[in-house]
Formats: sequence, C-alpha cells, structure tokens
Amino acid sequence: MTKVSPLAPASFPTLPAIAGVKVAAGEAGIRYSGRVDLLYAELVEGTSVAGVFTRSSMPSVPVDLCRRSLANGEGHARALVVNSGNANAFTGRAGFDAAQATVEAAARIAGCDVDHVFVSSTGVIGEPPPAEKITTALPKLKAQLGDDWEAAARAICTTDTFPKASLRTAKIGGENVTIAGICKGSGMIAPNMGTMLGYIFTDAAVPPGVLQHLLTRSTDRSFNAITVDSDASTSDTVLAFATAQKQHQWVAAAGDAHFRDFRRKFDEVMLDLAHQIVRDGEGATKFVSVTVKGAAGSAAAKKIALAIANSPLVKTAIAGEDANWGRIVMAVGKSGEKADRDKLGIVIGGVQVAVNGGVVHGYDEAPVAQHMKGQEIAIEVDVGVGNSSATVWTCDLTHGYIDINGSYRS
Amino acid sequence: MTKVSPLAPASFPTLPAIAGVKVAAGEAGIRYSGRVDLLYAELVEGTSVAGVFTRSSMPSVPVDLCRRSLANGEGHARALVVNSGNANAFTGRAGFDAAQATVEAAARIAGCDVDHVFVSSTGVIGEPPPAEKITTALPKLKAQLGDDWEAAARAICTTDTFPKASLRTAKIGGENVTIAGICKGSGMIAPNMGTMLGYIFTDAAVPPGVLQHLLTRSTDRSFNAITVDSDASTSDTVLAFATAQKQHQWVAAAGDAHFRDFRRKFDEVMLDLAHQIVRDGEGATKFVSVTVKGAAGSAAAKKIALAIANSPLVKTAIAGEDANWGRIVMAVGKSGEKADRDKLGIVIGGVQVAVNGGVVHGYDEAPVAQHMKGQEIAIEVDVGVGNSSATVWTCDLTHGYIDINGSYRS
Repeated sequence: MTKVSPLAPASFPTLPAIAGVKVAAGEAGIRYSGRVDLLYAELVEGTSVAGVFTRSSMPSVPVDLCRRSLANGEGHARALVVNSGNANAFTGRAGFDAAQATVEAAARIAGCDVDHVFVSSTGVIGEPPPAEKITTALPKLKAQLGDDWEAAARAICTTDTFPKASLRTAKIGGENVTIAGICKGSGMIAPNMGTMLGYIFTDAAVPPGVLQHLLTRSTDRSFNAITVDSDASTSDTVLAFATAQKQHQWVAAAGDAHFRDFRRKFDEVMLDLAHQIVRDGEGATKFVSVTVKGAAGSAAAKKIALAIANSPLVKTAIAGEDANWGRIVMAVGKSGEKADRDKLGIVIGGVQVAVNGGVVHGYDEAPVAQHMKGQEIAIEVDVGVGNSSATVWTCDLTHGYIDINGSYRS
Repeated sequence: MTKVSPLAPASFPTLPAIAGVKVAAGEAGIRYSGRVDLLYAELVEGTSVAGVFTRSSMPSVPVDLCRRSLANGEGHARALVVNSGNANAFTGRAGFDAAQATVEAAARIAGCDVDHVFVSSTGVIGEPPPAEKITTALPKLKAQLGDDWEAAARAICTTDTFPKASLRTAKIGGENVTIAGICKGSGMIAPNMGTMLGYIFTDAAVPPGVLQHLLTRSTDRSFNAITVDSDASTSDTVLAFATAQKQHQWVAAAGDAHFRDFRRKFDEVMLDLAHQIVRDGEGATKFVSVTVKGAAGSAAAKKIALAIANSPLVKTAIAGEDANWGRIVMAVGKSGEKADRDKLGIVIGGVQVAVNGGVVHGYDEAPVAQHMKGQEIAIEVDVGVGNSSATVWTCDLTHGYIDINGSYRS
C-alpha cells in the first residue's frame, strides 16, 4: 500500500472471533504480487444474509450473482469470496463463466448450495478475472480458516492506504452480541456507493427480512451519504451476515424495543466504516462534514449537501485551506433544489459566516481560517425554506487525487 | 494572465467594426491592478437584444437586473457594462445598490432608459463591488469608444488564459451581415453555463422574439453542452445584440428560409466561443468531445454524455493519457439513464474498443494509446437502447486545476 492517509485511524481495531464466522486471506496473484488479494469466509448453517448493491446500470458480474443468491437462497449464506485486482465488470460471457466457476468451487469447499455463496470483485474494469487462480487458491484458504480480520480487511483493498474495520458490542434483551464490519473504498466513491465493498458480521440471531430492512435503512445514512469524487462504481456491495450463535430474546421485527440497542450499534458500525472510506479518499487531507438545514424535504437537503460535497471548486478550496464560502453559495445554487438566496446562512467550524443572504456584519475571517487549517472541516448551510436537514461526508480534492488517478488503471 | 492554455487558438481573430456597436475597455482597478477590467459598449437605437442566464437559484445581482431589463425594455438595448474582479453575487442590498448605480450611470452616459442597459459582473462572490470605481471610469470609456474588440474581450476575463472571440459572415437574402462574439470562462463551467459571459453582436436586423428563439436554441447545443468542472456559476449570462444597420430582406420568424444561413453561422459563433471556453478550462491539456448514441431520448443522451464528461475518474485518466474505457462504462452506469450493458459499444479516436458489452476480440490498444497522447480526444459511446444522440465537450482534469483553485478566491 502507498503512504497511509493522514486521516487514518491510529490503529486497526482488535476484532474478536465472531462465533459462526471464520476467515482466511491469501495471495492468489490476481493482479498484484506479494500482497493478499483473496478473502474466503465460511458461515455456519443458519446464517442470515442481507445485501445492498450499486444502482449502476452497468453492474459487475459478482453483483449480478449476489443478487441471484439473495433471491434464490432464501436469505441464508454459507460462504463469501472476495478478490481484489479485478472487478469482473463489463466482461461479458467470460466474466460470467469465471464468477460462476468461483461460486461452484466455493460451494464444493464449503459443502453448500451455490445459492448460499456470495462473491465480490474489485479492481480493474473490463478484464475477465483469472478464475483458476481463485479456484486453485480456495482449498488452501479453507485449510487456514481462522480469525485474522486484519488480513481479511487487507485482502479486499485496492487503492486503499489502510485496512478498515469497526466493532461494537450491543445488547439484545440482556445478552451481549458482537457486530463487526470490514470494508474497502478510496476512489469511485459516490452516493450510490462507490468502488466500495462492505461486510458486516454479527453472532446475533436476526431473521433475513429484519436484517435487510436494517441494512437498507442504515446504508442511506452511511455508505450512501459519503462521496469522494461523485463517481459511482459498477461493483458496490454491502452484505450483512448474522450467524445466530447467541441465545437471546427473539427478534421478530426491526422495530422491536429490545432490538433498539442493536440497531443503534449496527448504524454506528456502518457509519464508522463509511467515514473510514472518506478518510481514505484518494489524495484526501481533510475530512469534511456538510450539513444542510432548512430544506424543503430530506431528499432536497441531501441533494444540496451532495452538490456542495461534490463540487470540485468547494473541494479544491478546502484543500487550499481557503474559507471560500462564495463557492458554497454557488454549489447550493446549482443543486436544482429550492433555496432562498436572501435567507441563506452559512456556518463554518461553528462560526457564522453568512446570514440572510450576505456576509455577517463585521465578519472576522481569522477563526474560520484557523478552522480551515485543521483536518476536520465542518460546513453547515441553512437554505431558509423549510425544516428538513441532512448530513453527508466528503474529503478535499488535492494533487494526490490526480496523481493516483492519472496513472492507476481502475 | 497566466501561462496561455496549450489548447488556445493560434491568435485572436481580426474582428471588424460592427455597424451600430462601439466598445471601450479600461482599468477601473476593481480587484486587479495593471489590467483592463471594465467593458463599456454602446448600441445604436433600434438594437434588438436577447438573453439567457444561469439556472442557479443563487443568481447574481447583475443577472437579476439583466432579467429586469429584458422584461421591461421591450427587447431593446442601448448599453452594456461588464466588469471583472467582482461577481456582485450574494451581496444583498449593498450589491443591488452598486449595480443599480452602475445602470443609472450608464443610462445617463448613453442617453437612454435604464431598462435598455445591461450589466454583468464576474469574479469573487460575496463582496459588494466598488460602484464608484465603475461609475467614475465610465465617462472616460465613453470618450474612447471604438472597435478594439481584443481589449473588450480581455476586460471580461478572470482566470482565462486567453481572450476569446469568434467571427462569421452570413447572408440574409443576398446581403452580407456580420456576426461577432466575445466570451469569457475557464472554471465553474457546467451545463447550466458556468462562470461564463458571452456577448454576440450582429449588424443584421433581427426582431427581439426571433433573436431570443435563436439564442435559446443555440445555447442548448453550445454553452449548455460544455463542462469544465460540473460547477455552475451564479453569474452566467449570454446576451445577443442585433443593431439592424444592414438593409436586407425582412426576417419575420426564426424558421424563414432566407434566415437559414444566419442561423447556421450564429450557431457556429456560439459553438466556437463555447469550445474556446473548454480550451481554456482551468488546467486543461486535452480538448475532449463525448458523443453518446443509441440513447432512449436526446435528454438522456446528453445526461449520459455529461456523466462521462464530468467524471473525475474519466477526466484524470485522459490527463494521464490512459485509454481507460472501464471508467467510461462506470460513468454510463452512474448516469441514471437507460443503457444496455450487454449492447454497449465504445469508440475512442475512431477505433472500436468495446462492442456488445465487452472489449473487442483481439483488442489492440496501440492506436488508441497513440490517440490519447494527442490534444484532441474523441469518445463515442453507443448505449444500445434507442436512436437519440448528443455531443458535449470537456477537458481533462490535471494538477493545474488544483493549483488554480486551491489558491484563487473566486
């Protein structure tokens, strides 16, 4: 991996064994040499699964196959295979055959139905993956199954500069359960998810329908509320697995009162992982939160927030540590959503910069300039037309982004 | 001005005097010192005017006032004042007063009604402009009125690296008329026009309604079909003036057969100017045309083309001279418009790269790699679902863009 992002967490969290899940990572030599590029995970019988996928009209073959397994497998999963180095997207029949061979090999090794196997691929678009390298490596990984989550998190990385994981303990009716997640993503990150893969594992017993409801709702406020470069990938996938290894009060519906702590912790894991992707945004030097208030509706609030968060001019100004609120006004204006120019207010780093459509009287830029020098930038905009709000997260746009993407063949 | 864009035309075109228009440029010291920053133009009585403006919900004060003059002035214009260095956007009451003072001063000097004065401002957002500097300079410019179009084109520039103009001669019923245009724009350029100002002048007699029809239609295929960075400004303005100084067959409607050559040449001037803005895109080293065919409708075609043209990953790949067609597939997929993954075809520089959803058999990258080394990049995508097409133009995304926008306070 290249130089670690300055926004990276201090260390990789210590993830415990999750009852019902075993993982192994290896070097299949798919594209990179000398680094792990293949993850194999086995899940105990009775594991629930839920998934959300890219909204791209050009989905990768593995996304097609995950959707197939989700539809045919009655919400249960037994194996997960993820490779980096090749996205198996836009690969036609050869790509399908390669992915199908991987699914069949994993089903044999795990001793399960093909519809209980889930596969993901991330990396270069347009080249069919070397299926034999994967199918040859899988039996070796089966022999190494264990709890090395850091290796698992590393195996799914591409341009990431650090492996990403998150952990929470939640209570369901008095019983402690564990929620752990890993993810990858650095570029091609946009609201409909980017080249990002995320996997959440819990030892709790959560029926597939409840897990799907939870995952879909949580994705909207986490992985679908981040943007690095407005580009949405062909491969985006988030899967959640619940192995049902803990004995606890039965969860019948997502709204159950005794399930509340789990929901909250699940959301925290999702948001923590999503933030880590932003913190590893290609070339990022600043972590930026954008909150829009006073919007006509929550969809409008999110659209305006994303117009700000995706604006190259706003992002380069942040990179330049310039409190250029005029560009924020510009981005609000271009969003296409209702906003009242003459009521617009802007707060940067907690300091009111503009109010009622103009700069505040006697505006002192010094504290705002100081805030812009930090690594955590907070932008709040009140668009003055309603009561809805939304928050999204992004990073700045720097020379590093150009360096990475002017040469990397993704 | 900074180092001239490598994509700039070889020279500024020689613009003739246009009967009924006189221009003068001067140094008002609005923000820059030692360079022209104020344009004053007078138009003969009976001049028709048409205008198109930003769709931003945060329009600048001058845009508001142009709309007012267009509504109240019965389609006629007598004076135009354009300053660079200050956009007079998001400036509240002080900004309105400054612009109104400019309009009134120009009306006095030109001896006309305030509703026949048009004003534009481009530059920093959020600071009320120094109205006295402008009103003090105007009488001096009145005394210097002439035909120095290059100075006029320079006076309206901000981060532009070269002044922009275009010229055509058209025939209306056997009579030659002249169409000349100047414009500015380099960053904050997106489909709803960017920080761009454009002014078209002709000595032909074109009724206001016909001129407006022509301008609106032409803008969609020129200034609204270019993008530098997807950011749309608060100040975008294109005005067309027809001084009616030539005697020719009467034009009753835009569709008149004897008006056809004028329409074509008018479109050429508009497109030439729009292309020059792309050629001066901040940090640009490549001029890129993106054509989408086989779309479900022309709006869908344009939206897909813009998704490609605005994709940071596509634009950085072009900067890196990488024929990364996988990113083109990604951009089609994220557009939200209908496309058939398994029928998708891509042509780069005239070479078929992908067909029916996969790379062509025996793909030889060499000629495509050679094309990518050039300054003019042509991308064609067939999305395989219908018969509609659209073309848009953009530039690559380079370190130069970051340099310019990480420091310039726009």
